Amino acid sequence: MPSVKGKSMSRYWSTKVQELQPYVPGEQPKIDNLVKLNTNENPYGPSPAAVRAMEEQAAATLRLYPDPDCDHLRRAIAEFYDVQISQVFVGNGSDEVLAHCFQALLKHEKPLLCPDISYSFYPVYCSLYDIEARQIPLADDFELRLEEYVQDNGGIIFANPNAPTGRLVGLGKIEKLVQGNRDSVVVVDEAYIDFGGRSAVELVDAYENILIIQTLSKSRALAGLRVGFAIGHEALIEGLERVKNSFNSYPLDRFAIFGGAAAIRDRDYFEKIRGKIIAGREWLGTELSRRKFEVVPSQANFVFARNTAMDAGELCRELRNRNILVRHFQQPRIDQYLRITVGTEQQCEQLIKALDQILLL
Amino acid sequence: MPSVKGKSMSRYWSTKVQELQPYVPGEQPKIDNLVKLNTNENPYGPSPAAVRAMEEQAAATLRLYPDPDCDHLRRAIAEFYDVQISQVFVGNGSDEVLAHCFQALLKHEKPLLCPDISYSFYPVYCSLYDIEARQIPLADDFELRLEEYVQDNGGIIFANPNAPTGRLVGLGKIEKLVQGNRDSVVVVDEAYIDFGGRSAVELVDAYENILIIQTLSKSRALAGLRVGFAIGHEALIEGLERVKNSFNSYPLDRFAIFGGAAAIRDRDYFEKIRGKIIAGREWLGTELSRRKFEVVPSQANFVFARNTAMDAGELCRELRNRNILVRHFQQPRIDQYLRITVGTEQQCEQLIKALDQILLL
Repeated sequence: MPSVKGKSMSRYWSTKVQELQPYVPGEQPKIDNLVKLNTNENPYGPSPAAVRAMEEQAAATLRLYPDPDCDHLRRAIAEFYDVQISQVFVGNGSDEVLAHCFQALLKHEKPLLCPDISYSFYPVYCSLYDIEARQIPLADDFELRLEEYVQDNGGIIFANPNAPTGRLVGLGKIEKLVQGNRDSVVVVDEAYIDFGGRSAVELVDAYENILIIQTLSKSRALAGLRVGFAIGHEALIEGLERVKNSFNSYPLDRFAIFGGAAAIRDRDYFEKIRGKIIAGREWLGTELSRRKFEVVPSQANFVFARNTAMDAGELCRELRNRNILVRHFQQPRIDQYLRITVGTEQQCEQLIKALDQILLL
Repeated sequence: MPSVKGKSMSRYWSTKVQELQPYVPGEQPKIDNLVKLNTNENPYGPSPAAVRAMEEQAAATLRLYPDPDCDHLRRAIAEFYDVQISQVFVGNGSDEVLAHCFQALLKHEKPLLCPDISYSFYPVYCSLYDIEARQIPLADDFELRLEEYVQDNGGIIFANPNAPTGRLVGLGKIEKLVQGNRDSVVVVDEAYIDFGGRSAVELVDAYENILIIQTLSKSRALAGLRVGFAIGHEALIEGLERVKNSFNSYPLDRFAIFGGAAAIRDRDYFEKIRGKIIAGREWLGTELSRRKFEVVPSQANFVFARNTAMDAGELCRELRNRNILVRHFQQPRIDQYLRITVGTEQQCEQLIKALDQILLL
């Protein structure tokens, strides 16, 4: 049998499967006692109200299918953002929402525009759904130059703040793009928006061609639950529903529906933990700068930084030897950077101590 | 804007979305106090061990991503069926597993073969993935005639026991089909196998072209949790993994992984509740036969039956008026049948009492 990356191929695979280069997520190590700053998880637990809601589900009616429309969760999101429930779509993590979005709204004859450096799942979706992508380079300082997206296209997607850079683009620039790009949908992936940005959700009533995607994995500390959502004009939401209902009627289980809604409703807890993470990010940025790091201005729950004295791959390995995981992307333009999740105060201090040891070697 | 089924279409939709006719699941009513015998849920709750495992997850590390490989759950399934973990794929309900299966293993140049009467999601997947389906009619008594599947094809799928008929085909016939059909994959959807059939999992070591799909929604009473799985040759599993990892790295949340594994491991509870359901089915079949129903022999957790005195649609409405939901498919050949889930003893009695009232009118 022919092989792909050391693995065998099968004649039973479809042509599509044979072409695919699947996404590789950040390592989820199966050992304990690691300082895990590699996958942008929230160092604090979810809202206690969400935990109670999930405990109740465990004891409740798990024998019955969940609501396929997830009204309870969609209502909580609609109330939070002051939109209609018909403007809200929910999925099994924002990755599933993104996947449906590529298939339903971004696949057209013309190419999709996206940044050259961004969430590395985007090119995988393009390959899965046979979408031609045209990558628009970020500026040298990693700024997203939205003025360069004003060209013929079948759709536009970018993350804001961008990943893995953490850089934010302002709402004014997004609105200008959406205004000048009426023939296709602009998808704004706001996985990290709660750590310093202003959400573009406020544009959805004015424009029918903008879709916002968010997740409960970061600011609501629920990566283990798998809830993502999209907000936009109801025609866009209906397009997503049509794909979802042709794929899986019940993608969200009862824990996701009730735990997710409770997390959205607990605004005090949300404010408290995101405040701590923002403070941690500022502290970490300052400390890294003092240690010969160039730190990209971040509005996310991670920092993206390059040490001017040591190779990033080596630094990543040295941290790993000290049980600290960070993410290193072996990719042009960013292969000298590390993406470091903002952990608890203690984890941030542990990282800085380890760096002091390593950089003095 | 042009409209589909009374809804508006959007110019932002992909061509694919405009073509889709999504699956319509059985009604999940948002009112209480119904005798819900319409979506083949298990009338008993899940294993208490599974409930404990899920309660533990609620309090545990939900802030962290789940294991994208779901090793803990796959190991439990592998042990239950005495196969290798590399022969097990898990997904967010068997619908998601089926979807990946259509895209990864059943999409080829040649047509897919499937029964004319079966799970009505199959044609939806064909439409989603542009797969040409050739429907092979069931016999007049709804028996699956596997000998008619011996023809040029790109894949074969059927449910065993079949839905909504409940009829089982024996393992010998399946093995013969798989032996004579080496050039494509035979997918056996065993959602209902635990209520009377013998699983074809025992064939997977001998044949590289058979894939078995099961769910925890029925025999493990976990429809609200969303866990499905596939067992087959590891090359088939790898094909599914490639699509899954190009779609959503983490489709199973921590509740699904740990609750699902605990449910699989609790064999005593599984035996107990499936025994009760089998007994209920036999009782229900006998009682229905006494009331002018023709009952198709069922090995599932439902019966499929036709009353010779009253129109099925009318009967369904009359039951609904008495707060009892059953499923009626408005589809050629079966539009005079009702599919009735086997409920608790009390629910079955309530159904029979209601029928006595209705049929005497």
